Amino acid sequence: MQDLPVTFNDIQSAAEQIAGVAHRTPVMTSRTINEMAGAEVFFKCENFQRIGAFKFRGAYNALSRLSDEDKDKGVLTFSSGNHAQAVALSANLLGIHAAIVMPRNAPPVKLAATRGYGAEVIEFDPSEDSREALARQLAEERGLAVVPPFNHPHVIAGQGTAAKELIDEVGELDIITTPCGGGGLLSGTSISAKALSPGCEIIGVEPELGDDGLQAFQSGKLVKIDVPDTIADGARTNSLGELTLQIVRANVSRMITMPDEALIRTMRLVWERMKIVVEPTACLPIAALLEAGREGRIDAKGKRVGVIVSGGNVDLTKTGTWFSSS
Amino acid sequence: MQDLPVTFNDIQSAAEQIAGVAHRTPVMTSRTINEMAGAEVFFKCENFQRIGAFKFRGAYNALSRLSDEDKDKGVLTFSSGNHAQAVALSANLLGIHAAIVMPRNAPPVKLAATRGYGAEVIEFDPSEDSREALARQLAEERGLAVVPPFNHPHVIAGQGTAAKELIDEVGELDIITTPCGGGGLLSGTSISAKALSPGCEIIGVEPELGDDGLQAFQSGKLVKIDVPDTIADGARTNSLGELTLQIVRANVSRMITMPDEALIRTMRLVWERMKIVVEPTACLPIAALLEAGREGRIDAKGKRVGVIVSGGNVDLTKTGTWFSSS
Repeated sequence: MQDLPVTFNDIQSAAEQIAGVAHRTPVMTSRTINEMAGAEVFFKCENFQRIGAFKFRGAYNALSRLSDEDKDKGVLTFSSGNHAQAVALSANLLGIHAAIVMPRNAPPVKLAATRGYGAEVIEFDPSEDSREALARQLAEERGLAVVPPFNHPHVIAGQGTAAKELIDEVGELDIITTPCGGGGLLSGTSISAKALSPGCEIIGVEPELGDDGLQAFQSGKLVKIDVPDTIADGARTNSLGELTLQIVRANVSRMITMPDEALIRTMRLVWERMKIVVEPTACLPIAALLEAGREGRIDAKGKRVGVIVSGGNVDLTKTGTWFSSS
Repeated sequence: MQDLPVTFNDIQSAAEQIAGVAHRTPVMTSRTINEMAGAEVFFKCENFQRIGAFKFRGAYNALSRLSDEDKDKGVLTFSSGNHAQAVALSANLLGIHAAIVMPRNAPPVKLAATRGYGAEVIEFDPSEDSREALARQLAEERGLAVVPPFNHPHVIAGQGTAAKELIDEVGELDIITTPCGGGGLLSGTSISAKALSPGCEIIGVEPELGDDGLQAFQSGKLVKIDVPDTIADGARTNSLGELTLQIVRANVSRMITMPDEALIRTMRLVWERMKIVVEPTACLPIAALLEAGREGRIDAKGKRVGVIVSGGNVDLTKTGTWFSSS
């Protein structure tokens, strides 16, 4: 096995670091979905995680491991989504100042929620400025530690604790499916699965219009695509990172893409049958299981399947559009 | 204490009867709602019950206690909602034929779901026929046992098992709030609460436009009102029954009403913050806690409060209307 930048030891250490702070989220099952998939499916429900998504795991692990000096100076990150709130809450709990660079056109509720955790929000114009460049410039000027959304060993290790908890609880799996945006969750999941359930097939799922991960997985090189137009807002990253690419290439069995219509059908099914609110990104691996299964792209029949349900942060005012047309 | 038609012994017996068939649903908590209510709130999540609502408890308890002769003949009920599916599924599990009288204009998904459990659906025209009269006539002609939606000792005892599980799990409560339609759930809840948590204040919550329960509670006489125009479809019954009135009068501390706008606000809050799908009727007791609390109609400050979250069966195509205007 090649040396990877994150090991299962790092994930075990992250699990200790976040214990008692992050929720140990429930594993749910559904008769209906088992019947539809012809499989035994275990949903690791990170929609019940703090801030409503797995991102809290990685952010808290990373922030809590900063040196005292870095903690005193504060942290900075760039995100318009769940990572922003994860850093803001983690910083709040740890007594660290957090500056979050967010696009001016981010949903007002997200800007407000991030400020609500006590973080300083720095707005920028996404049509003029590059988010990452701006963030790095600010970090240098102020001497802040940057906590990126996925391409960081402590972030990846934190995200891997979800799959660790899942397999610790239900035992070995034949398949594990996970959403893929920047690849932090997929990387962490793959490391836990390799360690705790050798032989488990690890499948990453992307939006059809944002298949940079699939392209990079096949070519071995980072592929950058324009911000994909998909309702799976957690997977609107435009490429993997150096670290996540290396781990995904080494561990992942297959990358699959799903169209938005499949995400809407799946979201409706999960809300109606399982009575849980899951966000479009979290529906990527569920849709893959149900629909790519029918198309023969996944063979889950008779198998034990784990699904990382990444989050449940949804703008409910959009549900009218989603569910009237489906 | 006066002799009531259902005792806590009946509820204990019902708990044994449904064990391993009904789900022991989870109790959830929410930091956000605790802070809003200034109380420690325990949600008994019957939205995760089989068929998506508490109704399965009462229906299964009642059907499983029929004589062999009655089981052979089959059962009949009248309902357009969760009770119909509860009877259909219970009958299916017990190998009993079920005939369900449903209005022709019931939502097609509900007609289909009820048929999906193998029940015979008998449609009627609600503008011409009286549902109960039709059902009783059919039952007589065919010799079927009638399992009414709430006014039956075994149904009431079954519904009481939810509050029993809640208090068994979290300990004594200062207040328990429960939706009230026909009063089956409220009656059962009140009997468990009186037995397991003496001194617990028991509050029933109705839609503002369907306050027949409040009127009957105050007057001691059954009050019939036209089918109330409310989104809380589980509370669209037009009166309590003889049995539920007697129990509610004896045990319940207070009846409160809530307007539909409060139910929509509460539904949105619960979906967004707790990530669970709850139906409008289930929001009655949560809204009462949050909004009647602010108005001083409930004093929950610093108290331990149980809430029976009755169900999660929602027509998602309506969410656009609900959540765009709220």
